[in-house]
Amino acid sequence: MNKKSGRRAFLARGAAVVSGAALVPRAQAELAGEPWERVYGTGFTKYGQPSRFEQSLGRHLGQPYGELAPGSGAALSPIEALEGIITPNSVHFIRSHSGTPDIDPKLHRLYVHGLVERPLRFSVDALLRYPRITRTYFLECSGNSSRALTPQPAQVPAGGMHGNVSCAEWTGFPLRVLLDEAGLRPQAKWLLAEGADSAHMSRSVPLEKALDDAMIALYQNGERLRPEQGYPVRLLLPGWEGNMSVKWLRRIKLTTEPTHTKDETSKYTDPLPDGRALQFTFEMGVKSVITRPSSTMKLSEPGFYEISGIAWSGAGRIRRVDVSTDGGQNWNEATLLGAERPRALVRFRHPWRWEGTPAVLLSRATDEKGNVQPARREWRARYAPDMRFHNNSMVTWAVEADGSVKHVYA
Amino acid sequence: MNKKSGRRAFLARGAAVVSGAALVPRAQAELAGEPWERVYGTGFTKYGQPSRFEQSLGRHLGQPYGELAPGSGAALSPIEALEGIITPNSVHFIRSHSGTPDIDPKLHRLYVHGLVERPLRFSVDALLRYPRITRTYFLECSGNSSRALTPQPAQVPAGGMHGNVSCAEWTGFPLRVLLDEAGLRPQAKWLLAEGADSAHMSRSVPLEKALDDAMIALYQNGERLRPEQGYPVRLLLPGWEGNMSVKWLRRIKLTTEPTHTKDETSKYTDPLPDGRALQFTFEMGVKSVITRPSSTMKLSEPGFYEISGIAWSGAGRIRRVDVSTDGGQNWNEATLLGAERPRALVRFRHPWRWEGTPAVLLSRATDEKGNVQPARREWRARYAPDMRFHNNSMVTWAVEADGSVKHVYA
Repeated sequence: MNKKSGRRAFLARGAAVVSGAALVPRAQAELAGEPWERVYGTGFTKYGQPSRFEQSLGRHLGQPYGELAPGSGAALSPIEALEGIITPNSVHFIRSHSGTPDIDPKLHRLYVHGLVERPLRFSVDALLRYPRITRTYFLECSGNSSRALTPQPAQVPAGGMHGNVSCAEWTGFPLRVLLDEAGLRPQAKWLLAEGADSAHMSRSVPLEKALDDAMIALYQNGERLRPEQGYPVRLLLPGWEGNMSVKWLRRIKLTTEPTHTKDETSKYTDPLPDGRALQFTFEMGVKSVITRPSSTMKLSEPGFYEISGIAWSGAGRIRRVDVSTDGGQNWNEATLLGAERPRALVRFRHPWRWEGTPAVLLSRATDEKGNVQPARREWRARYAPDMRFHNNSMVTWAVEADGSVKHVYA
Repeated sequence: MNKKSGRRAFLARGAAVVSGAALVPRAQAELAGEPWERVYGTGFTKYGQPSRFEQSLGRHLGQPYGELAPGSGAALSPIEALEGIITPNSVHFIRSHSGTPDIDPKLHRLYVHGLVERPLRFSVDALLRYPRITRTYFLECSGNSSRALTPQPAQVPAGGMHGNVSCAEWTGFPLRVLLDEAGLRPQAKWLLAEGADSAHMSRSVPLEKALDDAMIALYQNGERLRPEQGYPVRLLLPGWEGNMSVKWLRRIKLTTEPTHTKDETSKYTDPLPDGRALQFTFEMGVKSVITRPSSTMKLSEPGFYEISGIAWSGAGRIRRVDVSTDGGQNWNEATLLGAERPRALVRFRHPWRWEGTPAVLLSRATDEKGNVQPARREWRARYAPDMRFHNNSMVTWAVEADGSVKHVYA
């Protein structure tokens, strides 16, 4: 039996198990008429919203300072409820340091200055005139999954722990176009990118990345950037720590050395076991997480379930994702969607028959550079105990005999 | 000079022309501080919305019966303001016959009956259990661009005429899974698909399509279907007339022949010059439209402009899009994004230098089957004067000497 017919046979069997379909008398289908079939529906809207029966879909708010600073912290994507690859703009994760500034695009300016021949100032209208490119990229906060580093495994939805990642179709133009226009001086080797939020969140970026695939992003999934994503203009550094893709971008200053801003010294550094700390670990590691089934869900009965989740790598394309249902003893290669796109989310799927007995679900991603997602223990051994960034280790969900899905540390 | 270096040189020149950048004194960039940089921003939201400065983005409402029936007609996508390929769910075009029903997913049922071995009834929860697929497809109403058939060319935004087309990442599963489960009888050759709106909009679908790429769609761009797009479940027939992708799907009845419902006899038929009418012209033709610049826009000054738009074909992949800026005398092949995906929107781009003199812009798409988008005159000659469907003819925008962009018939 070849692989394809094996999978097909499995799915056919799975389908027969899952249907939950009821046999119905022949006439019932034609006669049935629910209340909404007997009244005229609602009128058109210019800008639509989800069904009133889907109002529970929303970001998981992490506001460590509460109402004192309701826009500081993170609002995580509900990845456990999403499908496909594209994250809807309304639930794209947010990581902000001082809330979302209310920027008037007519007044906003972007400066390019420092070690350039011609310091320049751009209006947003000017930025909108450049020839555009569109690319699908994930963004992940380097603090994503830090909630999976607590002493005891948190029992929260997958998005509440691992939802500081999203994926969108970004439209804008290459940053190098602006740098060419300003004229780089030979001493320019780094740049400082600063946002127009009141925290003036800023990061240092090596020139090599700026001249490679860095984008000036103006649109997100077809419409203009959302305020929480940097409206009217953000930097986008594909595959790198999310906060380097500076939102509300107000200036780019060319420098000889990194600026060592507060945001790259007090945070976003990686403490090591020997007491030193790594700085400038820009690239996000290869990673995956099973989103369905996942923590806090419950399987209603034995039978067919699709195991599905997302995978990504800052180093390029995802080559494969393996899924285990027995705690890592046996692995099966999952089906991938979108694996042709570098630095974008990939959706993986794997058919599974739950027998009604305890099971332990894991996924493990491998990228095109050969990087393999590490086990949690292996990852922990690389860093000091207080490390809170770049946790790309494997995520484990335990399915109990009653169908409850629990977060466990393997 | 090879093509790539030629394009690069052009873009560099274009960029230099478009920038609108102002030279600035060296210190200004560091000192500038707009009001929003001096106050704490707004807090997180669970489900976000566009900037208050982008509230003009919305569907173009076409309500022929006004307030008597505010959900009958069409609400067209503002394609002139969108970018990339994905249409945000909030502005996906709507074509509805009796408004949007307010469906409780706990009560909704899908029936599969007629010429089947086992008539079946499915709850939405049951449908959500099947193994899923995700595909990016356009949907186009067969009445799209009928407004470009008026005696005089309408001067409205591009979306107001050609915006009955959108594109999304749909997630669901193949319709054939349900048909297999019900068991097709040998006489079954067609099916009737009926919606749960009060119009019970319904269409006949040949079994061949149902067993090929027809989908039961449950998610749209990562989140559950929007109410206007068929929540909680719709049929999706890739590349075919939009209304065949029946929304609010409540039953599928297997039949030997087409049912000839009101929706495929009183509408959606194509009158021919000899007085007969074509019925069941399911596939949408190869088509493109320049969205920027387009009707009602104004070029502010001579210089660089990117010509950009969307192309699609119900027959498969777009192979090429050619752009003319002189009314069709000379054509240039545009750059394509997304051309690897069959039956999805493709974004095309072409750099252009406007000299400040009158220009006439046209785009012409060709698909992988060799179908070429027809000229308007050629298309008109195929049908009776009152033909209102399947207008896939070329769209012409005239740029006047003052930069105004007008809709013209070429």
